[in-house]
Amino acid sequence: MSVLSEKLQNYLHEIGLYERAAALMYWDLATQTPDKGVGPMQEALSYFSTKAFSMWTAPEYEQMLRTLQKPEEFEKLSPALKLTVKRYLEDYERNKNIPQDFYTAFVTESAKSEKAWEEAKRADDFSVFAPHLEKMIAMTKEKLSYTHPGKDPYDVLLDQFETGMSTAAVDRLFAELKEGLIPLMKRIAAAPQPDVSMAYGHFDIDRQKRVQELLLKYIGFDFEAGATGESEHPFTTDLSMRDSRVTNHFNEKECVNAFFSAIHEGGHAIFGQNIGEEYEDTCVSVVNMMGLHESQSRFFENILGRNINFWVPVYDEICKLLPAFKQISMEDLNRIMNNVHPSLIRTEADEVSYCLHIILRYEVEQAIFRDNVPVCELPALWNDKMEELFGIRPDTDAAGILQDMHWSDGSFGYFPSYLLGSIYDGMYLQAVKRDLGDVDELLRSGRIREITDWLITNIHHNGSMYTAPEIMKRLGLGELSAKPLLDYFNEKYAKIYNL
Amino acid sequence: MSVLSEKLQNYLHEIGLYERAAALMYWDLATQTPDKGVGPMQEALSYFSTKAFSMWTAPEYEQMLRTLQKPEEFEKLSPALKLTVKRYLEDYERNKNIPQDFYTAFVTESAKSEKAWEEAKRADDFSVFAPHLEKMIAMTKEKLSYTHPGKDPYDVLLDQFETGMSTAAVDRLFAELKEGLIPLMKRIAAAPQPDVSMAYGHFDIDRQKRVQELLLKYIGFDFEAGATGESEHPFTTDLSMRDSRVTNHFNEKECVNAFFSAIHEGGHAIFGQNIGEEYEDTCVSVVNMMGLHESQSRFFENILGRNINFWVPVYDEICKLLPAFKQISMEDLNRIMNNVHPSLIRTEADEVSYCLHIILRYEVEQAIFRDNVPVCELPALWNDKMEELFGIRPDTDAAGILQDMHWSDGSFGYFPSYLLGSIYDGMYLQAVKRDLGDVDELLRSGRIREITDWLITNIHHNGSMYTAPEIMKRLGLGELSAKPLLDYFNEKYAKIYNL
Repeated sequence: MSVLSEKLQNYLHEIGLYERAAALMYWDLATQTPDKGVGPMQEALSYFSTKAFSMWTAPEYEQMLRTLQKPEEFEKLSPALKLTVKRYLEDYERNKNIPQDFYTAFVTESAKSEKAWEEAKRADDFSVFAPHLEKMIAMTKEKLSYTHPGKDPYDVLLDQFETGMSTAAVDRLFAELKEGLIPLMKRIAAAPQPDVSMAYGHFDIDRQKRVQELLLKYIGFDFEAGATGESEHPFTTDLSMRDSRVTNHFNEKECVNAFFSAIHEGGHAIFGQNIGEEYEDTCVSVVNMMGLHESQSRFFENILGRNINFWVPVYDEICKLLPAFKQISMEDLNRIMNNVHPSLIRTEADEVSYCLHIILRYEVEQAIFRDNVPVCELPALWNDKMEELFGIRPDTDAAGILQDMHWSDGSFGYFPSYLLGSIYDGMYLQAVKRDLGDVDELLRSGRIREITDWLITNIHHNGSMYTAPEIMKRLGLGELSAKPLLDYFNEKYAKIYNL
Repeated sequence: MSVLSEKLQNYLHEIGLYERAAALMYWDLATQTPDKGVGPMQEALSYFSTKAFSMWTAPEYEQMLRTLQKPEEFEKLSPALKLTVKRYLEDYERNKNIPQDFYTAFVTESAKSEKAWEEAKRADDFSVFAPHLEKMIAMTKEKLSYTHPGKDPYDVLLDQFETGMSTAAVDRLFAELKEGLIPLMKRIAAAPQPDVSMAYGHFDIDRQKRVQELLLKYIGFDFEAGATGESEHPFTTDLSMRDSRVTNHFNEKECVNAFFSAIHEGGHAIFGQNIGEEYEDTCVSVVNMMGLHESQSRFFENILGRNINFWVPVYDEICKLLPAFKQISMEDLNRIMNNVHPSLIRTEADEVSYCLHIILRYEVEQAIFRDNVPVCELPALWNDKMEELFGIRPDTDAAGILQDMHWSDGSFGYFPSYLLGSIYDGMYLQAVKRDLGDVDELLRSGRIREITDWLITNIHHNGSMYTAPEIMKRLGLGELSAKPLLDYFNEKYAKIYNL
């Protein structure tokens, strides 16, 4: 290793310390900071984030990257460091063009906009949020004019959350999916619907937590390299390479949702816990490709968790830990967790209609950034698309365009990642079957860890070394396609709904 | 406020941010960092502690203090800032004389010594710890030769944990106490001993936690300004002026100990939660006087908590939250929590014999620093003193000199703070009775908050503005004396043991 590359890694390591402080404060704020301690904790979080940002934009740092970029230095670098110099120089180039004043204004406006969104949602009043949404759209466009002058804004937004993904690629995949999903949804709607009332009752929260622990261990979450907490919305955060934490939100009246949140966040965390240690202090250990990350949480949640065989080895143990769970038989559970039906709220949707929720958002984002549809027309556009895709229309904006927080802080282009994750999962599933055999049988016989190990070896270990299309190639799966996901849905739900 | 004093406060505020990061990491390490995340978290803690230390020792900081010390600037300052300039300049003067190399060596040796102590205790082998203890003693003496050249080392050590306390003062108080306690212990030992077997059973830990919450609320812990966690040893830490956190350690077989730990740590936290906000970014908001701090935790734990009337308003509620607690009647509880008897382990001792445990340590520390007794002779000295004070002799060093960790990291002079706290409590109790009336009656009738409010007004609000002797004067209680504590013990235990 050259002296200079060591210097770069030490520098990245130091940024990591500031980011660890900020991440720990974020975790603490979400899970345990008491009300009156929130202000001081937020102040400290913001202080250390700013310190990290100033290190990311320091001229001294640029100098290191530029020197390492020179051919005679570059050729001596490891593949991970080559990628690091390349990616971080691109990031640096973009960020340095953002005027400091604009950056500060953007951060301030985001915070205001988030608060306005909360209020608007609570009051079910879009007009409270509209001026802020307008501003976030305008500022996002302005930001992109600095970082990516002359490029299509929405292409850039997609690429930002999923490296290498363009509107053309996403258009093709989503169109393929939409075409297959709408008829499937209709056939399911025409079939007899299950009784799922046994999902509701009284489920002791302390005991739900013990089930969560069981489920996390079962899927391969390493409690020596992770921890759990409680927060308003479930999330995962990595505090270091072997410290991935998940949160959950529990409800005394219903427990199945929390179990799936645990499996979902557990999937994110297992990814974080298994990135190769040799990638520490390189860009490879940081996975900002959200489609790739979601593909892992959703593989555990949907492909494995919503397969009834997943529950065979643990059902009795769960009933022991949470006696109230006995009211839900295995057959009931299969219907509850695979209860496909049109619904208004994305986060409560089944795995099939979930895809349509994302496609709706993708189309509205295009309307915003491509067609410049005015903000005041967006609620009606949303509702029209709900009718088109689901055949239902929200009564309120709170259950319509105001339901998600993503746009309030400017995270345009994030939604598609969720669905890209599922599309990747359809493809991974093919490879898992090819390499390990029948998944139902693996799950039923308690061999889920073989699947986890496959994911670790083929995906997690490599961190962000490869983009999703590269991973598919390495796995011999060819071009990205939504067909495997559609095939999986069609086969699975034909059985469940006797189609 | 002058521009310069504002600059000083901003500087102290920034140090506070680094210390907040370090404190949060400490809290996290103790309560939830997973094993494999410990290394990175410790590294970050050490990084931010060092940043804070370098700000405490920066020439720029000294310059600010020196300028503010000049009469024309000093007279413009608030009392809290006057104290801040005075105290912090003294600290600065001392710390600047410690050679950087020595400081680093001391920190490194402490860490090694702590580990060696753990191993020695586990293996019950003093010889593993002896060379490290020798080194910690020598290094402590060396450190004091830099910070306080020419002064008596043990005097300095005492003063370090309890500002204004000298060996002469402590000698007088402890002698007074020892003289009264030994006969009391003998009289109690001669009385019939209670059956306390009902203290053991099966007590669900999740339910013990609910009782903890009840007890903390009951004594006045503000959950909007604090949080709870679990750790190997209970402790309290303040993350900001309105964010005081307590931990506890639960045992399924016995719950009374954990309840008293909760009340004890709750007392520390209530102090932190109620320091006047106007003292932010001054030395007054930082309470390093450990005797003063212990006086608050011990007032709640012993003076209030070990009074059976404390439990009258909450007993039924506790039995509802923790049904297993019903096996302990109020009369049983009174005997369990006031079961005075000679014992080997300080942390498990009753409030009377606890005092003798501290006096023993105080005498051994004097043997070390005054009489230069060689380390190899200390285990026997410890055991001899156990026989003298308690009439029992430990079979092992693990239950003797190796039981406490304090000396392993060089915290010589800390032990006396615990007992000073109790001595202060005896005096506060007089003032509480004078100002609020009969304490038994206040507790029995559920008016404990009036006592908490008295403590807040007379002690907590002022932070470290006043030393313990100054507080006593302000309360009209005269010179420090152990007599009130002795009177309290004599009266209380005469009743309980029918002496």
